[in-house]
Amino acid sequence: MISTVVWGTGNVGRLAIRAVEAHPALQLCAVIVHNPAKVGRDAGELGELDRLLGVEATDDIEAVLAARPRAVVYAASGDVRPDEALADITRAVRSGAVVVSPALYPLYDHRNAPPEFRDPVLAAVTEGGGSLFASGVDPGWGNDVLPLLLSGLGTTIDVIRCQEIFDYSTYDQPDSVRYLVGMGQPMDYEPMMLMPSIPTMVWGGQIRMMARALGVELDEIRETSDRRALDTTVTTRTMGEFGAGTQGAIRFEVQGIVEGEPRIVIEHVTRIHPSCAPDWPVPPDGGDGAHRVVIEGRPRIEVTIEATDEGENRSAGGNATAVGRLVGAIDWLVEAEPGLYDALDIPLRPAIGRLGRKQS
Amino acid sequence: MISTVVWGTGNVGRLAIRAVEAHPALQLCAVIVHNPAKVGRDAGELGELDRLLGVEATDDIEAVLAARPRAVVYAASGDVRPDEALADITRAVRSGAVVVSPALYPLYDHRNAPPEFRDPVLAAVTEGGGSLFASGVDPGWGNDVLPLLLSGLGTTIDVIRCQEIFDYSTYDQPDSVRYLVGMGQPMDYEPMMLMPSIPTMVWGGQIRMMARALGVELDEIRETSDRRALDTTVTTRTMGEFGAGTQGAIRFEVQGIVEGEPRIVIEHVTRIHPSCAPDWPVPPDGGDGAHRVVIEGRPRIEVTIEATDEGENRSAGGNATAVGRLVGAIDWLVEAEPGLYDALDIPLRPAIGRLGRKQS
Repeated sequence: MISTVVWGTGNVGRLAIRAVEAHPALQLCAVIVHNPAKVGRDAGELGELDRLLGVEATDDIEAVLAARPRAVVYAASGDVRPDEALADITRAVRSGAVVVSPALYPLYDHRNAPPEFRDPVLAAVTEGGGSLFASGVDPGWGNDVLPLLLSGLGTTIDVIRCQEIFDYSTYDQPDSVRYLVGMGQPMDYEPMMLMPSIPTMVWGGQIRMMARALGVELDEIRETSDRRALDTTVTTRTMGEFGAGTQGAIRFEVQGIVEGEPRIVIEHVTRIHPSCAPDWPVPPDGGDGAHRVVIEGRPRIEVTIEATDEGENRSAGGNATAVGRLVGAIDWLVEAEPGLYDALDIPLRPAIGRLGRKQS
Repeated sequence: MISTVVWGTGNVGRLAIRAVEAHPALQLCAVIVHNPAKVGRDAGELGELDRLLGVEATDDIEAVLAARPRAVVYAASGDVRPDEALADITRAVRSGAVVVSPALYPLYDHRNAPPEFRDPVLAAVTEGGGSLFASGVDPGWGNDVLPLLLSGLGTTIDVIRCQEIFDYSTYDQPDSVRYLVGMGQPMDYEPMMLMPSIPTMVWGGQIRMMARALGVELDEIRETSDRRALDTTVTTRTMGEFGAGTQGAIRFEVQGIVEGEPRIVIEHVTRIHPSCAPDWPVPPDGGDGAHRVVIEGRPRIEVTIEATDEGENRSAGGNATAVGRLVGAIDWLVEAEPGLYDALDIPLRPAIGRLGRKQS
């Protein structure tokens, strides 16, 4: 069995505990927490499982890594603390572990990652013999392995379009919704998420990887964006009101240009209320949202993905598929040479041994 | 370039001509037709392309195979003429060609194919050094490689369910719709498609392959079926009226039983009018139909696939994805050892070299 640590027990970490526990080749051997209040609590409780797992959370990172675990799922955030996340990850790689993580977008397409991200990891690989695979869902399998595989069913391929179409009205993340995305702000407010080069920083690596896998040369990566105001004031379930005339929807594209044409496109359409921008793509069947891959060409192939977990929660569902992709790669990585890997290296494989698996 | 023949130019054959023409590694070298009226016509015209290809259709099978083409896309029907199709296919395999075909369902899961299908092909492989890969869309990639790959994103997997949910009212195949499927028949009429063991004959191989890929043992394969009558008489676009009280919808499942539980399920829900059986699963967004994969478990992953070609035609779209899967396998098969292959052997790969490819 592959001794596996889960580092971090937030929205991603609890899903990781469940995924490691469900995987027949992995053995959960430790859970690292940053919050002192969680120290000593059982992993089953932190993973919101219906049973205890007999693994108690610890904040003693030194001791956990000294035990030389074979794998680490790094589930702590990298968004608001990239330097700490990078330090944690390189520390785990240097201990010789295979590390999988959704943290640190630049390392998803590590070949084009800035040296300050890439070099410390490569050094840790050399020193400690560990590995790193960083990926997610969007960015992640929703705009790398899935569209690439679906393209194999096509005949002529004009455009590969990966969409996220989401209605945020049921979300409960007021800060990022109001300030990062700009919902409810005056129309002259510039949301950070739409500032030039930010979308490319987050999704450009996926465009480059898809181009590489399809054997095409990118002229450049372009960005387009659009915003729409609310016609009327709307009230959301947990985030209060969003006033008429303020931003109610955004739409942006990160475009991979091939011989002058946008051939590989990652598009986001985000609303704070379904009534805003009705002429833009909408979630299927009036739902909260979905990811979609469209292979434009002959045939036209449209694939819509909806994932839910923890009740009907789409955010948890998406995170869980990212965790599934990452945890599902551990046994492959353990067999491979130490190194820095990306989504094109690691095949998406069936859930061998997990259909109807009874959890002891 | 891999010299490639397209044998048959009906609904599947014209799609195959376009797929071979669009593939950078393949060279269309001959088109075999059975209908004397098609002899001499250009492949571009038969493939409904906007240009001539300089390859004239022939009915001289002997001459085409004597030229030792490297690959044959056998696109003639196997449904109503299985013996002839098997004879044609073994003849092509014996000529040393790699053969791909949607014909002959039993050969999709060749390990469990009846000897009368399997033995002649194996003999031809031994004698001539050719290969065969038979697959489709449903049965085919929609209930083998796609659900298996998607399962890799899961954590706990309770059921893998592959659905076809179609409204036949826009179809133009009155014979199969009225007699094979039973639409418009009195409720005591027994449609051939629902006769015990028929669904398993067509889809059982897919259940067995998925079980094999997931490492589970099947206790047995079961079938369930249900029919509903129309409340009112309905009129379809091309197939006339279907009377009130006659069959308006059917629903069946082919179930792979694992430790007493249905864990791998292929389900079809077919209507002649959207009003019939509203409580059964319905096509997304009120459309004509879709294929769907549902990974029941945590997370719950629902993936809906809609393919269209030749205008908004879903039947052509589905056929085109089957042809994409088959033609996309040729270069892999040419590199592999001669043999009889199934969908678990042959990876679904990206459309390398086809994004935005200009057709000369």
